[in-house]
Amino acid sequence: MKIVYVLPGPISRNEQGRLEMERRLEILRSYAAPATIVDIVDVEEGPASIESLYEEYLSIPSTVDLMLEMERKGYDAAILGCYGDPGLDAIREVTEKMVVVGPGEAGVMAAAMCGYRFSIITVTNSIVNPLHHLVEKAGVGKKLASVRAIETPVLELANDREGTIRKLVEEGRKAITEDRADTLVLGCMSMGFLNVAEEMTKQLGVPVINPGKISLKMAEALVGAGISHSKVAYLTPPKLSLGKVNSSAGLLVRKESSTSS
Amino acid sequence: MKIVYVLPGPISRNEQGRLEMERRLEILRSYAAPATIVDIVDVEEGPASIESLYEEYLSIPSTVDLMLEMERKGYDAAILGCYGDPGLDAIREVTEKMVVVGPGEAGVMAAAMCGYRFSIITVTNSIVNPLHHLVEKAGVGKKLASVRAIETPVLELANDREGTIRKLVEEGRKAITEDRADTLVLGCMSMGFLNVAEEMTKQLGVPVINPGKISLKMAEALVGAGISHSKVAYLTPPKLSLGKVNSSAGLLVRKESSTSS
Amino acid sequence: MKIVYVLPGPISRNEQGRLEMERRLEILRSYAAPATIVDIVDVEEGPASIESLYEEYLSIPSTVDLMLEMERKGYDAAILGCYGDPGLDAIREVTEKMVVVGPGEAGVMAAAMCGYRFSIITVTNSIVNPLHHLVEKAGVGKKLASVRAIETPVLELANDREGTIRKLVEEGRKAITEDRADTLVLGCMSMGFLNVAEEMTKQLGVPVINPGKISLKMAEALVGAGISHSKVAYLTPPKLSLGKVNSSAGLLVRKESSTSS
Amino acid sequence: MKIVYVLPGPISRNEQGRLEMERRLEILRSYAAPATIVDIVDVEEGPASIESLYEEYLSIPSTVDLMLEMERKGYDAAILGCYGDPGLDAIREVTEKMVVVGPGEAGVMAAAMCGYRFSIITVTNSIVNPLHHLVEKAGVGKKLASVRAIETPVLELANDREGTIRKLVEEGRKAITEDRADTLVLGCMSMGFLNVAEEMTKQLGVPVINPGKISLKMAEALVGAGISHSKVAYLTPPKLSLGKVNSSAGLLVRKESSTSS
Amino acid sequence: MKIVYVLPGPISRNEQGRLEMERRLEILRSYAAPATIVDIVDVEEGPASIESLYEEYLSIPSTVDLMLEMERKGYDAAILGCYGDPGLDAIREVTEKMVVVGPGEAGVMAAAMCGYRFSIITVTNSIVNPLHHLVEKAGVGKKLASVRAIETPVLELANDREGTIRKLVEEGRKAITEDRADTLVLGCMSMGFLNVAEEMTKQLGVPVINPGKISLKMAEALVGAGISHSKVAYLTPPKLSLGKVNSSAGLLVRKESSTSS
Amino acid sequence: MKIVYVLPGPISRNEQGRLEMERRLEILRSYAAPATIVDIVDVEEGPASIESLYEEYLSIPSTVDLMLEMERKGYDAAILGCYGDPGLDAIREVTEKMVVVGPGEAGVMAAAMCGYRFSIITVTNSIVNPLHHLVEKAGVGKKLASVRAIETPVLELANDREGTIRKLVEEGRKAITEDRADTLVLGCMSMGFLNVAEEMTKQLGVPVINPGKISLKMAEALVGAGISHSKVAYLTPPKLSLGKVNSSAGLLVRKESSTSS
Repeated sequence: MKIVYVLPGPISRNEQGRLEMERRLEILRSYAAPATIVDIVDVEEGPASIESLYEEYLSIPSTVDLMLEMERKGYDAAILGCYGDPGLDAIREVTEKMVVVGPGEAGVMAAAMCGYRFSIITVTNSIVNPLHHLVEKAGVGKKLASVRAIETPVLELANDREGTIRKLVEEGRKAITEDRADTLVLGCMSMGFLNVAEEMTKQLGVPVINPGKISLKMAEALVGAGISHSKVAYLTPPKLSLGKVNSSAGLLVRKESSTSS
Repeated sequence: MKIVYVLPGPISRNEQGRLEMERRLEILRSYAAPATIVDIVDVEEGPASIESLYEEYLSIPSTVDLMLEMERKGYDAAILGCYGDPGLDAIREVTEKMVVVGPGEAGVMAAAMCGYRFSIITVTNSIVNPLHHLVEKAGVGKKLASVRAIETPVLELANDREGTIRKLVEEGRKAITEDRADTLVLGCMSMGFLNVAEEMTKQLGVPVINPGKISLKMAEALVGAGISHSKVAYLTPPKLSLGKVNSSAGLLVRKESSTSS
Repeated sequence: MKIVYVLPGPISRNEQGRLEMERRLEILRSYAAPATIVDIVDVEEGPASIESLYEEYLSIPSTVDLMLEMERKGYDAAILGCYGDPGLDAIREVTEKMVVVGPGEAGVMAAAMCGYRFSIITVTNSIVNPLHHLVEKAGVGKKLASVRAIETPVLELANDREGTIRKLVEEGRKAITEDRADTLVLGCMSMGFLNVAEEMTKQLGVPVINPGKISLKMAEALVGAGISHSKVAYLTPPKLSLGKVNSSAGLLVRKESSTSS
Repeated sequence: MKIVYVLPGPISRNEQGRLEMERRLEILRSYAAPATIVDIVDVEEGPASIESLYEEYLSIPSTVDLMLEMERKGYDAAILGCYGDPGLDAIREVTEKMVVVGPGEAGVMAAAMCGYRFSIITVTNSIVNPLHHLVEKAGVGKKLASVRAIETPVLELANDREGTIRKLVEEGRKAITEDRADTLVLGCMSMGFLNVAEEMTKQLGVPVINPGKISLKMAEALVGAGISHSKVAYLTPPKLSLGKVNSSAGLLVRKESSTSS
Repeated sequence: MKIVYVLPGPISRNEQGRLEMERRLEILRSYAAPATIVDIVDVEEGPASIESLYEEYLSIPSTVDLMLEMERKGYDAAILGCYGDPGLDAIREVTEKMVVVGPGEAGVMAAAMCGYRFSIITVTNSIVNPLHHLVEKAGVGKKLASVRAIETPVLELANDREGTIRKLVEEGRKAITEDRADTLVLGCMSMGFLNVAEEMTKQLGVPVINPGKISLKMAEALVGAGISHSKVAYLTPPKLSLGKVNSSAGLLVRKESSTSS
Repeated sequence: MKIVYVLPGPISRNEQGRLEMERRLEILRSYAAPATIVDIVDVEEGPASIESLYEEYLSIPSTVDLMLEMERKGYDAAILGCYGDPGLDAIREVTEKMVVVGPGEAGVMAAAMCGYRFSIITVTNSIVNPLHHLVEKAGVGKKLASVRAIETPVLELANDREGTIRKLVEEGRKAITEDRADTLVLGCMSMGFLNVAEEMTKQLGVPVINPGKISLKMAEALVGAGISHSKVAYLTPPKLSLGKVNSSAGLLVRKESSTSS
């Protein structure tokens, strides 16, 4: 089974980013089952990090292109590397068979199987309302206790790992005592790769879902079960299915073609 | 009061598109109150028409840029020219005061004020599920009777106007008798500019909402009432509010800058 | 376009009431678009103010009569002058084409278009549960954060305008911080005519909907869009549509006719 | 235990109406437990029958007055004699301890205890949407399968009893097979007094709730259990609780007082 | 009318238990209407008290057997003596006509008829989530304000009656002020037989439902109204209805039969 | 990783049952990842098959005992071998760390990740309403399109495999065309072991979830992710956590101990 982790931000441009990609790949491989091959790629163009719906949308065009390339390369599953699942539905519209895992969806589904009510602990308030909608769209809104933010930007999470954990535990505790949550989900992929879930579970006594880890395991599970997204749900764009354009790329009328017209 | 209609597809490239823009502008101006100035613009890059979520996402980056330009130019309100409201929330994140009307949202709100249950009649099945989500997000899912499609591509709606009306009336009648709808909404802007709502009302005996018309009137209403979107709801992306980038454009790390690094 | 504001309480009986009506008319005219003619009328019989469902019901019979008269007089729209929308559905049952705007419905619809979650700030606790039901009936219950009361009777709101604003800001702040509201609605028409929404927005940083202002603008919008309530939703009472009585008034078997029988 | 059945229409004006009242009283007494005393009264003014929200509202002012009189007379419970429960909440606002049973509420609560999904079979389409709201307000909307009408006016139900039963069985069967109902409720008091529920149960094999009968038994149950409506839910109108008016009647500013001012 | 109270725990084994059964029987008889005969029975095997779903399930097999025996003995109604309604649906599957009252269901239905929002005050946190599900299943989840526990085991409730009342009043007050409840339900049958509801109502000013009392009155009401559970809702197990086994007992393949095979 | 499949019915008593267990074990092992060890066990006492809630409850006591034994034996996960998930919550109350997978829960979660709306196709009508509740409890009721039954008893599914497939395809097609489902779930474990999902997918063009296969893959995923049920959600029964009884078995007061007392 071949799984690829697709980063919707162009982080491989500098050395630091390339090291981070290698670090994440190693972590993902440590999660994988023996027969699972894991790779990692990033887009050429996109936001530096995602803390708003605008940045989510900025990431989608390049990510869809890269996802299509991954399907052509024969990957069985791809993980969309942002907790907000930007463009998950569009990727499913244009791909055919490759399993596409959204960490947001996978994370809350796992949380829903662990208890009666879960809370998401995320980075900034700017993403709290969008995450409420993500949960509604995933279909498990009835089990959502709350979405809470630690008000720390994505790119600063790792600067003070201890401070980050302290804030995560603090908001997690409020979720349990004030919002009646019994299960927590880390609502940001960079939080996932900090490897803090186990520490939080120890301090809080509830399951804490690491979105990176659960995404890999859900990808393995769905591929293993032989199921993928329904093409009756995520219909191929009509211009493609009717043959009016040759490829997904053909759906965009680009600026430069304007000059040539 | 100055209102601009923003087309999320690059239709002004050829003569036919420029004529269609002029035609739409004239219609919009015929809807407007005496003191309202209406203009129309289109993006430089985007999909030819929108019949899938993927095409919605493709339209967003250029549309947000254009919306920001319209706010700088002093427009009081802008209408997002696609019924699916692509990027409506992102536009509200980056704009400050300009009223931004999504025809999907405006249309279903008006429908909800007309009766107990409404149905949306749209172009193709590929957009039926996304429209269900649009209604949920708008907050009036409780009043939605159904979303039905006439299975005619956007770009072919006007080719056979009589045939299109016949199909619209047919699906509208099913919505009333089978789904218990008492109000209808045309779920596509190109349907709106066909001027078929009155004809449908005559044949079906229920209000039929023209999304273009209602968007203009809602824009006038909200500007007139002095209210716009809440910046506590649609928070400015943190990198912007914290001054880490200078402008919305700075949120995208572009491909070409890669070569220079 | 002709719009009439219909007061469901008999306030024109004394000088003070007549002055208040004139004051409100002037305010409404200041909201109106250039081509809009606004008038104001009150019922001959009804409650002094409305702070309970019982008082709502007491206002309905006379108000429906007056609304029918207004439709006969050729008004394009009427605004029902109480935030609780008493008898809105009944008025729609007996009128044919006149747009009938309920400020409760119009207010929460506008609020729903401004953000993710809104709160209503109203006068007394006695009306809090009924306003929850109004929002459910309007169809936007999913976006309701809370209904809060300042515990000040309607007729005393204007006695201490500064004190009223202070209480409104206080409850509004609680709505934002404790109930996660991002938009506020003033849940009482007398609050609307105090002209406090702008002051509240300045202090709280969120849109505050003035129900009087939004009702007028929504009336203009719906008339301008050429739509009114669905007669398939609000069916004419069968005794009227079947011709068993000649007029709405004929639906009530009055006490005095008893003596004559 | 003393229970009174309050008719919200003035039917005792003629002989036929008085005989019908006696007939209903006899039926109600046949339902009652040994120690229960049952009486019947009607209002002096109100609609001839109730088939619209407008007629519901017309019935409320006189009915509330009569209910207050019944509480003063020492009745333990009163049954509001219309399935739509017109003014039920207002009656609870102004009464103190008397149990007030709404047949709509009582009927759907009993239905909810009989199965997973119930349907209401009522008289005319004009009351179908209002009954949906009644069920939502009662709190058991989740169990509602459908509301169906036999399209027969209230006052004609008894003219062709066999025809009425035939239509009731027909719609009931559709509710079971098409809407997946397992329990039925007769959505009109006049249907209740036709004594058709047993016949329907025999033909359809599901419980059929007679709203008159269940109202009487629920009245006995609540009085017997020593509970009544919560005055924290149905607050006394502030003008009354603060002593600004002396009685409920004082809440209405009547037309005639206008002439004297 | 003959009603039996069925204890799902084997409490008659010792003198103390037998005295408690007699005490409860006397209380139930004091609630009953003149013509109602009340009896009490307990199972031979089951949990000592019920504070978890596991204990609920342990009680079901013996309780179903005993319920079937009660139906054969001609009882018109049976009350399932545990607030969690363990096995209520299964009992309805195998019985034919006997009314089976679940105190959980009966209690929340009565609460729903008293106000807008109710809270359940129960014994231990271990049963809080299950009671949320009970309310959802009963169909009145929309009216649930909260479920709160006093954290006192069932078997210790009566040891310190004053202390228990103090805790009940304390949690009840929080339900009213923090959760906006206007009606309370005692979520445990042993609480019901402590006779504390009246005392709580006096201190808190809201209706407090005693589940034992309301169960008896609802049993009388449903038997009196001639309705019972729908056999279209609670279908007889197919092996029974198709004659593949002779009796409910035949549905269990017992361990001892294993040794004989 | 060690996973055990726990059959809640005593099928190993005769040769045919033992062969069926071996067959199922082989199938489960064919699903498993390389490093996963799979075993199968059955209870000593329980129903022959499960087609009613009563039979679900009959299966629980022995199944909980066996699950506890499996946890003591060191299994990482156990699969509850009935689609209705009988006693899933109780098993989680008494176990500590072992992942317990309910096929009902696992199946609908996977379905929810494949599309917008799913339908369950199950054996008999007697289990349709309970499956609606299972989905609500799992938290994904919003995505449920319908539950349909082929009206074939569990024990006869395999007698006519072709006939069973025909009926499954027929109901599946109705779910897609009439109920707007885009994904199907087989709502019975015996259906799962017929290996018909692939055939159905070929004929219907939508994902069809095999509950046995997905349960195994979800078990691997959750164990691999290091998460299990929250003990704050599924609290240990108080008598156990407070040390009042020594073991889960001690929670049942058995019949035989009665004779010895």
